[in-house]
Amino acid sequence: MDNLYSERINALRALMERRGWDAVILTGSDPHASEYPAPRWKQVEWLSGFTGEAGDLVVTADHAGLWTDTRYFIQANQQLRGTGVELHKMRVPEQVPIPEWLADRFARKDSVIVAVDGLCQQVAAIQELQSAFAATGRSSDPEDAYFYRIVDAPDLLDALWTDRPAIPRTPVTLVPEELTGESRRTRLEWLRSAVAQQLCDAALLTSLDEIAWVLNVRASDIDYNPMVISYLLVTEESVNWYVRKDAFDDRDDDTTLDSFARLEDEGICVLPYDEVQISVHGALSDGGINRLFVDPSSLNWSLYNLLAESGRLCEGTSPVQLRKAVKTPAEIEGMRRAHRQDGVAMELFLYWLERMVLSDKIITERTAATKLGALRASLPDYLGDSFETISAYGPGAALPHYITPVKDAPELEAKGLYLCDSGGQYRCGTTDITRTVPLGPCTPLEREDYTLVLKGHIDLAMAVFPEGTAGCQIDALARNPLWSRKRNFGHGTGHGVGFYLGVHEGPQDIRQNFNRQPLLPGMITSDEPGIYREGAFGVRHENLLLCVEAGRNDFGRWLQFEPLTLCHFDTSILVRELLTPAEIDWLNEYHERVYRTLAPELPSEVARWLRGKTAVI
Amino acid sequence: MDNLYSERINALRALMERRGWDAVILTGSDPHASEYPAPRWKQVEWLSGFTGEAGDLVVTADHAGLWTDTRYFIQANQQLRGTGVELHKMRVPEQVPIPEWLADRFARKDSVIVAVDGLCQQVAAIQELQSAFAATGRSSDPEDAYFYRIVDAPDLLDALWTDRPAIPRTPVTLVPEELTGESRRTRLEWLRSAVAQQLCDAALLTSLDEIAWVLNVRASDIDYNPMVISYLLVTEESVNWYVRKDAFDDRDDDTTLDSFARLEDEGICVLPYDEVQISVHGALSDGGINRLFVDPSSLNWSLYNLLAESGRLCEGTSPVQLRKAVKTPAEIEGMRRAHRQDGVAMELFLYWLERMVLSDKIITERTAATKLGALRASLPDYLGDSFETISAYGPGAALPHYITPVKDAPELEAKGLYLCDSGGQYRCGTTDITRTVPLGPCTPLEREDYTLVLKGHIDLAMAVFPEGTAGCQIDALARNPLWSRKRNFGHGTGHGVGFYLGVHEGPQDIRQNFNRQPLLPGMITSDEPGIYREGAFGVRHENLLLCVEAGRNDFGRWLQFEPLTLCHFDTSILVRELLTPAEIDWLNEYHERVYRTLAPELPSEVARWLRGKTAVI
Repeated sequence: MDNLYSERINALRALMERRGWDAVILTGSDPHASEYPAPRWKQVEWLSGFTGEAGDLVVTADHAGLWTDTRYFIQANQQLRGTGVELHKMRVPEQVPIPEWLADRFARKDSVIVAVDGLCQQVAAIQELQSAFAATGRSSDPEDAYFYRIVDAPDLLDALWTDRPAIPRTPVTLVPEELTGESRRTRLEWLRSAVAQQLCDAALLTSLDEIAWVLNVRASDIDYNPMVISYLLVTEESVNWYVRKDAFDDRDDDTTLDSFARLEDEGICVLPYDEVQISVHGALSDGGINRLFVDPSSLNWSLYNLLAESGRLCEGTSPVQLRKAVKTPAEIEGMRRAHRQDGVAMELFLYWLERMVLSDKIITERTAATKLGALRASLPDYLGDSFETISAYGPGAALPHYITPVKDAPELEAKGLYLCDSGGQYRCGTTDITRTVPLGPCTPLEREDYTLVLKGHIDLAMAVFPEGTAGCQIDALARNPLWSRKRNFGHGTGHGVGFYLGVHEGPQDIRQNFNRQPLLPGMITSDEPGIYREGAFGVRHENLLLCVEAGRNDFGRWLQFEPLTLCHFDTSILVRELLTPAEIDWLNEYHERVYRTLAPELPSEVARWLRGKTAVI
Repeated sequence: MDNLYSERINALRALMERRGWDAVILTGSDPHASEYPAPRWKQVEWLSGFTGEAGDLVVTADHAGLWTDTRYFIQANQQLRGTGVELHKMRVPEQVPIPEWLADRFARKDSVIVAVDGLCQQVAAIQELQSAFAATGRSSDPEDAYFYRIVDAPDLLDALWTDRPAIPRTPVTLVPEELTGESRRTRLEWLRSAVAQQLCDAALLTSLDEIAWVLNVRASDIDYNPMVISYLLVTEESVNWYVRKDAFDDRDDDTTLDSFARLEDEGICVLPYDEVQISVHGALSDGGINRLFVDPSSLNWSLYNLLAESGRLCEGTSPVQLRKAVKTPAEIEGMRRAHRQDGVAMELFLYWLERMVLSDKIITERTAATKLGALRASLPDYLGDSFETISAYGPGAALPHYITPVKDAPELEAKGLYLCDSGGQYRCGTTDITRTVPLGPCTPLEREDYTLVLKGHIDLAMAVFPEGTAGCQIDALARNPLWSRKRNFGHGTGHGVGFYLGVHEGPQDIRQNFNRQPLLPGMITSDEPGIYREGAFGVRHENLLLCVEAGRNDFGRWLQFEPLTLCHFDTSILVRELLTPAEIDWLNEYHERVYRTLAPELPSEVARWLRGKTAVI
């Protein structure tokens, strides 16, 4: 019994047979290795129906498989039903990654030809594939008896996916210098000096958030991620931005045309997106560029192949990443403003929610999410959400990456815990907040879990630590209250957050990895421990924390956190005895700040309600 | 005004001139990369007078320099006075390591010839030297105009150091199988299978504690470290132990001859130490060994050079390290026994100390150390100390690596804090304990520091954590009570401890590094936070912790610690308000265990005294 997806996979198999391909690999990413791609690049979803944010698809003549990790096993099992696609589990002890699986699958075949859409493939992934084949003794030379070949077939699905969306071309805006505190000229000069330190005379930026940061440009090409699909080439003399130039010359998009004109005035050459290959390749060939800095983690394999021919690439981690993570004073001020607005929406939402539940009105996870979206939409600087709101009641909240159904979403009941993880994009910053609130009576376990997660959240938020400390060295502070009762959560405690950019960014994080990047003053990182009880409930408490100086003494220089997020934590179900006096002090002081900052912006009845919610415990 | 050391350095310079060497590098280590070498290999000390455990010496025609780290700056400054040797600081931001320093120093000279005692040089250090010269454009080919050469001159000081001690040859004993729980046969079989997994047919063990562990042999070749200076070659068919065979054939050392005879009976071939070169090189040349596993971190450069010619070396981290760190049930039982005995000595010592101070008797740091040594010496299984006792009063204790003077040691006074860090080697295990005790009135700062360090000690000791957790991920638990008041300590929190072997061993530790080695059940690690107030006082509290299983639940498998060390912490100066109820419970339970275990072994008056010291707080 074929369904839509198995038909598409069979159509791909017919194409593979015509082309002589033994296997095709497709990823869920775009030509810029974006975490969230535009619909055009949701190739895995189109072919298999799987909508998870991480998943690679492999199709052979007799097998179709989706490789994804623990976060998406349940979702994949549901979505792949009837498609004929098998789930291959990653991040489990017995995992067999794609390269090893392919090498083994074709072990007895003399030749293997694997096709990939090189635009959407990371260089490292292809190198792993090459290593896996080499490890089984295969040659990469088609003259040999036992060989493999990896074919770069950009946009290989085009032949089947007739209504495939075009490259998005949403209006391009410029972020005023007063919001970023740094002109694009300053950032370009800094980039040039950073590139010169690598003994390079040019850099090709391929990561969309890095380009947006350097040029102070934004668009809405990708849902929730205000980036512009483009490439940026910066040489000692010139700046070439490869972007939607061609498409706009004859269109009625004044915003974008104005933006382009201003950039051209500043000497930035705005060029068509597709010209990047020929233009950069040409400069490398004719000596216009001597050594070009690239970051293979966001450079796609097609472009890498083309440019690497020159022997003039210098590969490394883009210096923009770290510089972008350390916010300027103006950006910090903007983030504070965004959080004041976001806090107003959150308190209005929680007030509304409580009233609805108390008055026995029927609300679902979806109507709650819609209400919150509407409240944010009325804020002065709001531009959109920063990710899809997770509005989850009871068992839904036990899935850290729950997707609230659009239709027939579960109804909220006047008992137990409701979890809402959401955020906004503002012209002055980005927010990300999770609150878990009781809708009525809670079980002792719910109350204890709720309290322990908050205790961990507070312990991390209160941390004072010496300069040079990395996130993985303090992650245990957020987990210890849970650990001591043999409870835990399976995700990271904190991720970096961009300034009116991606809600996830590096290079710092707070989790159980061995990331050596120290936390630096000006970095913004989330603090979001949780606990998940399958089939029952989930708890997560999340604020964004700004890393700030805490003085210097005989023992060195000290850092600490300042919460940017402003919204009360419900205290009615706290098990007070589980908190130390210092934790209670932190909570009371935070609540006082929440009240004082937000009350003047709230209708008086909501302000009165908030006074009660933030009362000293 | 020349002193002994400047004369020796000048004699070395004369030798260098004769040989045509531009520079000589000497290390403080031995041919086995031991942390503590025998006197024969204290070449840095002989030449410069510096006695620190970490320090490399470089001598050129016009410069002599000692490279050491933060721990030894004060000591080096004192000991190098008048020698003409300059201190080069390492582990500071502006550090210039030896390779870079040499490359720069001779930048304008066409040829540079550096001589090293390759027996005492690690392979990695020589590779760094080669890289540094290569980075400045020097060739390693003496035919080129601008070249460098590294000359291996084993025992190069012999010509000057006429009374240089011989290779130590203390009696070799066998550890009975009932103490280790594993016969040497079992360990050799395991080693063979581990080596086969690396696709090797033989392994050369060069690290002394690994050899002692595999063969269940011990000696006293190195102070405090019960190891036998030797090499061990294990092939599929044979076991060759290169050790003092020659020297003992005609000596009256029945212990060693008996040990050798028993080993020979078990098929282990006991050979002269010096034969290792020719024997292993021969086996590699004649095909007796196809692929030889070596660990470059303990293989010296001379031997590496010789063996690497064959092209048959497989380099990696020795599998013995990890296996040795996970103690057998018999070893754990032995460690418990050793700690019961050690606890008796410690309590007798602390009782004596309190009586002496109360009765106004004059005692010095040295007489206290001597008393403790005498008390340990009367224990049934005691064989020696596991390191040199740190007996430090007041300002002395502010140096984490204080050396108690043999003559004119400071007197203890009836006020402030006394710190004692000591340990024993027992035939059934190794101990390492630090206690800090008040000798009379203490200042509020002393009391607060004392309490905060104990709080950190307890927080780590109480930790429950998921399997897979590495020490660097929980180190912050011990530091957080200090950090929150902007205090800290500059050393690691915990090191691995051997079973009747080195008091420091890997691969696990608990410190602010990024060591990925998870803590495993059966590992023994110290828990020793501290605080150091220069010129005033120091606090350190140390127990050894055994990692044990703590059950499995929905969240995974859990681990925790069990303190092996048995000795009370003084509670009289605790600032009780700084401790949580859970920390107080831990302390009370620990004290109850200390009392119940040790009281039956103590004279009744000491037991009564201990009852008071361990009273519930």
